[in-house]
Amino acid sequence: MYCIIVYDVSVERVSKVCHFLRQYLNWIQNSVFEGELTESELARIEHKLKDLIDLNTDSVIIYKVSFKEIIQKKHIGIVKNETSTII
Amino acid sequence: MYCIIVYDVSVERVSKVCHFLRQYLNWIQNSVFEGELTESELARIEHKLKDLIDLNTDSVIIYKVSFKEIIQKKHIGIVKNETSTII
Repeated sequence: MYCIIVYDVSVERVSKVCHFLRQYLNWIQNSVFEGELTESELARIEHKLKDLIDLNTDSVIIYKVSFKEIIQKKHIGIVKNETSTII
Repeated sequence: MYCIIVYDVSVERVSKVCHFLRQYLNWIQNSVFEGELTESELARIEHKLKDLIDLNTDSVIIYKVSFKEIIQKKHIGIVKNETSTII
C-alpha cells in the first residue's frame, strides 16, 4: 500500500521522528514522508512512533491508499524531493 | 474531489498561506489542510498560492483523490483538528 505520513511534533523530537521515518519512507518536504509499505512495516512504524512522540502533545497522521496511482499529486514552487511521478 | 494540501514555506509567509487556505479547507495540523474542493476552487487556490509563496524556495504539494473514502486515515498522538471521520 502507499502511505503519506505527516507529523506535527515538538522541535526536540523532530529529528528523531525524521530519522526514524527515513528508514522506511521517502522524505518529501518538511514533516512529510511518502512511500510503499507492507502492513507489517506500517505496524512497526506505528508502534515505534508511539514511543518517539509525546502522545499528549504531538500529532502524526498516516494517510493510506491501496495503490499510489489513485492519488494525483501536484507541486507548486520547488520540488524538495520527488521519488517518482504520481501523475 | 478531496484534497490534502501540505506546505513547506519560509516562516515569513506561513501565516499568509495558512490564512488563505483556511478560506477553503480545514486546518488539520501544522502545514496540513484538507477538504472537498471543486475544480474551480482548486484552480483559484493554485493561482493564489503562486502569488503568495516564493516559487524558488517554497514548496506546496496538493494531493487529490476523487472522493475521500478511498483514503484511510489514522492518527497517532493528539488530533489537532478533525473535521470528519475518513477511514
